[in-house]
Amino acid sequence: MAVNLPLPVAANLKPVPGIELGYAEAGVRKANRKDLLVMKLGEGASVAGVFTQNRFCAAPVQVCKTHLQGLQSGGKGIRALVINTGNANAGTGDAGLANANATCSALAELLGCDASQVLPFSTGVILEPLPVERIVAGMPQAIANLKPDNWYNAAESIMTTDTQPKAASRTVLINGKTVTMTGISKGAGMIKPNMATMLGFLAMDAKVSQPLLERMVKAAADKSFNCITIDGDTSTNDSFMLIATGAGALEVSDADSAEYAQLVAAVTDLSQELAQMIVRDGEGATKLMTITVEEGASIEECRKIAYAIGHSPLVKTAFYASDPNLGRILAAIGYAGVDDLDVARINLWLDDVWVAKNGGRNPDYKEEDGQRVMKQSEITIRVKLARGSESATIWTCDLSHDYVSINADYRS
Amino acid sequence: MAVNLPLPVAANLKPVPGIELGYAEAGVRKANRKDLLVMKLGEGASVAGVFTQNRFCAAPVQVCKTHLQGLQSGGKGIRALVINTGNANAGTGDAGLANANATCSALAELLGCDASQVLPFSTGVILEPLPVERIVAGMPQAIANLKPDNWYNAAESIMTTDTQPKAASRTVLINGKTVTMTGISKGAGMIKPNMATMLGFLAMDAKVSQPLLERMVKAAADKSFNCITIDGDTSTNDSFMLIATGAGALEVSDADSAEYAQLVAAVTDLSQELAQMIVRDGEGATKLMTITVEEGASIEECRKIAYAIGHSPLVKTAFYASDPNLGRILAAIGYAGVDDLDVARINLWLDDVWVAKNGGRNPDYKEEDGQRVMKQSEITIRVKLARGSESATIWTCDLSHDYVSINADYRS
Repeated sequence: MAVNLPLPVAANLKPVPGIELGYAEAGVRKANRKDLLVMKLGEGASVAGVFTQNRFCAAPVQVCKTHLQGLQSGGKGIRALVINTGNANAGTGDAGLANANATCSALAELLGCDASQVLPFSTGVILEPLPVERIVAGMPQAIANLKPDNWYNAAESIMTTDTQPKAASRTVLINGKTVTMTGISKGAGMIKPNMATMLGFLAMDAKVSQPLLERMVKAAADKSFNCITIDGDTSTNDSFMLIATGAGALEVSDADSAEYAQLVAAVTDLSQELAQMIVRDGEGATKLMTITVEEGASIEECRKIAYAIGHSPLVKTAFYASDPNLGRILAAIGYAGVDDLDVARINLWLDDVWVAKNGGRNPDYKEEDGQRVMKQSEITIRVKLARGSESATIWTCDLSHDYVSINADYRS
Repeated sequence: MAVNLPLPVAANLKPVPGIELGYAEAGVRKANRKDLLVMKLGEGASVAGVFTQNRFCAAPVQVCKTHLQGLQSGGKGIRALVINTGNANAGTGDAGLANANATCSALAELLGCDASQVLPFSTGVILEPLPVERIVAGMPQAIANLKPDNWYNAAESIMTTDTQPKAASRTVLINGKTVTMTGISKGAGMIKPNMATMLGFLAMDAKVSQPLLERMVKAAADKSFNCITIDGDTSTNDSFMLIATGAGALEVSDADSAEYAQLVAAVTDLSQELAQMIVRDGEGATKLMTITVEEGASIEECRKIAYAIGHSPLVKTAFYASDPNLGRILAAIGYAGVDDLDVARINLWLDDVWVAKNGGRNPDYKEEDGQRVMKQSEITIRVKLARGSESATIWTCDLSHDYVSINADYRS
């Protein structure tokens, strides 16, 4: 059961001029479920992405990187993305690379473009061969139902252990010109992106140059998909792709312009919503925790402490139980690896409740106040370090019985 | 239910000449349970310890460090250790320090020594004031039942969420002289010592000089208590103490002697048994996993990878389910933070089953072989990096429904 995550309404997901989406039930791992998605881009679209830092990065991630690098040496623009669930095509060696390339070639042939103009994505079980023949066999079905208003189906097609599809739209007016953007994402375990969720795609109809789009996708990821954790496991397949179809009125080419600043703000805002959706639908999640660490000497140390809190199984189970056993938060701060931390200066709040003052229990703190906040479904943990002026925020969820059930049963 | 951990037999726990143990039901947190332990040492005993690296180290840890440092500037020898459960006296600020010192003073007065000759230890809930008056009130009871053969009761007295007491003895013959050693330890959550378990005590009757004992305790901890993880949470109170009463026949004063080498080997061996007992009794544990990473360029990178595997909730739940979803191990290796890791050279075994070969699935690997090993209660995960000649081994347990239950309910 996701935390305050309403089902998207298909009619509210705005088509983005310049992109069509089609899906199929290809039977990659299980029958009778949408497990293959094709995104077809019009000519002139720009695509940029950020990918997992996992050294065991999956074959499709390697192929994506190669095809995107090709753009810098004058390669033809990206015309399609193809995504399968049910199999991650990771830990599959050379055969996996060949399968990812075969997927691109097959789609390219059907769409009439080059294989290098296709970006492949996979998510699912690691260490098993990709059933490329079933994926290829599903492609005609996906192409047959290509439509601009297929975002809801697209969001469903990339789900794995997600309990519901994740999608959102925005329309922003920048310099008198309307930009339409729609994105989808999926989680919901193996989530501590060193970069992104397992998969996130955000398309807009602005025209953005390739270097600017690459800059924009990194900026947005750093404040969204790079700020979430469910279980601390960084996946082999994490990918977040930003697509600018160029079919709309706005064109942005100057990184110092007001238009760029407004567009990156809007993209970041939608990215945060998509990233938080993943946490809200975290495996077994019953609560959404926002962890903010302030007054640090560096952003890095703030993130270290925020993640130590967000990864602690003891903190996460206490939140699951609505038990204000808040010393566990102090313990996590203490072992986060900030070696010269002066704990006597640390203050801790749970929403508006001042729990720890100067490293010890706040004399005015009452257990019933902590209890009141712990019972909420959304809680902010705020830590002040009194070491500087930097800060960082991450989002995470609690650790419940269902997390164990889901992951103990995932393959069975 | 602990993993292959038989109850210690009180009669098999050997008294160590030069040390007596007494316990009390002091009602620190709950009534009618042993929660206070006094260890009384004869004159001339040496004591050395290693402590948590958590910046929020508890008040008793701070006092222990001060009293042990006093030995180096000619202070009188340690004569007693006092341990309470039910309250960690951590995150308690100056009041906590005063309480830890008051505990030492009270026991010192009863035993006729200085407060600086007492070492205090606490374990239990963080961020709550230590009920020092109840601890002091329990001391006469503990002193009244001081006995050399009280090790079983001692092991019971330091339990928190442990399901059973942990204790073991050894007798070793070194250079024709018998050394008797007995140790106790406790876990069982908040265990990823950057140094030690929450609490471990090992006493022997050899005579060992203070500098040599300090060297010995570090060497033993690095290969035992520093090699275990249950949930990745480093406690505020971890302490491992090595006591040499000097009441036996063997005297060791030369770090280069064969006697020292044999004694440190015996102490390390017993420490490993005590440390593994903690993992076997890990909260909710149903399996013991030994994780060995070989052929690394450094011990540090081997440990990084071993801990990434050992901390992964996805790996731990797969082992709980006996599900050979072994790609999760590769994913953990990939995100362990060894930046220049060439995954194409990695090989992975589960006991005798060769799972991954040169970074991909071993073509000869059969799911049923993985399944067979996964069903065992003790499993070795072996990773070869092909980068050098260093190696590291850690011990951990799986992540089960009971872990969540225990930690969601701990305070209620």
